[in-house]
Amino acid sequence: MKVAVSIDIGGTNTKLALVDQNYQLLRRSQLPTLGYGSVSSYLNTVFNHIRKLASGLDRNYEIEGIGIGTPCANTRTKMIEGAANISFLNDQPITTLFESEFGVPTQLINDGNAAALGEGIKGAAQGMSNYILITLGTGLGCGIVVEGKVAQGVRGMAGEFGHVIAQKGGRQCACGAKGCLETYTSASGLKRTVFELMADLDQESILRSISFEQMSAKQIYEAALKGDPIALKAFDFTGMILGEKLADLVTLFEPQAIFLTGGLASAADLFLEATIAGARKNVLPIYRSTIHILISSLAVNEAALYGAASLVFEHQKQVVL
Amino acid sequence: MKVAVSIDIGGTNTKLALVDQNYQLLRRSQLPTLGYGSVSSYLNTVFNHIRKLASGLDRNYEIEGIGIGTPCANTRTKMIEGAANISFLNDQPITTLFESEFGVPTQLINDGNAAALGEGIKGAAQGMSNYILITLGTGLGCGIVVEGKVAQGVRGMAGEFGHVIAQKGGRQCACGAKGCLETYTSASGLKRTVFELMADLDQESILRSISFEQMSAKQIYEAALKGDPIALKAFDFTGMILGEKLADLVTLFEPQAIFLTGGLASAADLFLEATIAGARKNVLPIYRSTIHILISSLAVNEAALYGAASLVFEHQKQVVL
Repeated sequence: MKVAVSIDIGGTNTKLALVDQNYQLLRRSQLPTLGYGSVSSYLNTVFNHIRKLASGLDRNYEIEGIGIGTPCANTRTKMIEGAANISFLNDQPITTLFESEFGVPTQLINDGNAAALGEGIKGAAQGMSNYILITLGTGLGCGIVVEGKVAQGVRGMAGEFGHVIAQKGGRQCACGAKGCLETYTSASGLKRTVFELMADLDQESILRSISFEQMSAKQIYEAALKGDPIALKAFDFTGMILGEKLADLVTLFEPQAIFLTGGLASAADLFLEATIAGARKNVLPIYRSTIHILISSLAVNEAALYGAASLVFEHQKQVVL
Repeated sequence: MKVAVSIDIGGTNTKLALVDQNYQLLRRSQLPTLGYGSVSSYLNTVFNHIRKLASGLDRNYEIEGIGIGTPCANTRTKMIEGAANISFLNDQPITTLFESEFGVPTQLINDGNAAALGEGIKGAAQGMSNYILITLGTGLGCGIVVEGKVAQGVRGMAGEFGHVIAQKGGRQCACGAKGCLETYTSASGLKRTVFELMADLDQESILRSISFEQMSAKQIYEAALKGDPIALKAFDFTGMILGEKLADLVTLFEPQAIFLTGGLASAADLFLEATIAGARKNVLPIYRSTIHILISSLAVNEAALYGAASLVFEHQKQVVL
């Protein structure tokens, strides 16, 4: 049985898995991404995790290749380029280093695109050929599947929906632009909205006792569950902005469904209604009946691991043909 | 030699062509779309045009099928649905009627998607697998090619870039929404901008002597060539808004190029610089070097005719396989 090593390099953790060609997740592992002092020290730790995972495999399993999902993956140069959170890996020939170490083909893909592929392989998008997966985490990730293929663009960097402009001249984004969607509709965007609302309104709120640095999306979520008016308004505003921009995606792609995943998506009860209302308001009327905004059926990060694994098996297929 | 009948049904004219399988345009014809009193009277006129075109063909040519590009084509039901300009054709089984009349398979496609396919077949997008074609006419049409396939969506209605929101709560669009891109970046949008500028500014302008009903994009173009400040500002504003929204397309698709076509595109000298500046300002910095906004190399409407023809030949291929 053929097996893929699947890796999802995030800003906080690096997740690994062994996935067989029936997309059964055999074994998993995880390590922090940062704090190693050097690229080689980080990579050696990843290599050790892979060896440990592989050592537990039966003899009838054979590792066919490695698939890596990362932010800012340039699939042409096979390097990470311009990543803010994992800048130590920028412009490093990481696929070559994996290939030297393990002697198997290694592919790179943007994490948002990997997650979208994974949702189609094992998640709620199975059988769909036109769908979109949005990851609402610290930032906003996205993968767009068109006629059965994930939109990768010239360098594999397509799908950066987090950086379409939601508000002209709006909030400063880490990317350098102003008003990017992810400055509103992400865990960090939600917090910024809470602070804006605390300034604008005079309603009491549990959140007024927490500093910007200390406030987490989880605290906002818990406040909302207790009926805190600022927290509830923040979720409502976040949902509406998201919906308004999802309308653009519906107008451009007419997808069968848009799936939400990531930490913030687990609080969808608090904002999904506003999202659907925002989308309905902004969409071309002929699309109104086709808006399907759903929650991903996979655990956060699993989708990206399945998607990264698919690079190995799809690559094999191409080679065979 | 196999031949396709290619039809482009526009709000003003219906264009027809015979196209051979090497995509040589053999013969062309044209008729007004409106003013027939009934669907069957219109269709009979189209049928007569086809018969006349076909009667001039050599015996070694054989008509394989018919491809029709129209606004609001639902490729699933094979009917036009919700079209404002050609509403008399809405919900009519037109492909069935063509098939009954000529006994060959008839396919439907959105005109913007047809034009995008055509640009790839005979135009400047040959050899590209990720590109976008924008038609700047009375409205704004669009076709998006992703990994070699035109994005059609669930019902074939994807790519309505003219109806993404350019300005929240902005200009009233015929579709019912407010602030749609085509209310700014189209021949009619340009005129609306001229009237807004005449209200806002006190500069003299040749255009102040022309009523809203009488003003054409051509008059604005000619005024701009004479240095009219309102006309020049209107083109500049149009270009900038277009660029700001093209930035979203670059961020979502990372295309090899975005092509402009249609009447307004022939005045690109007056707005392209503003378009590129608007796109550069709004795009994720990692994409800045990849912005290529170019003018289509095909005559207006030709692209859609080639694209509609490709439905016939591609359909044949699928049947053969």
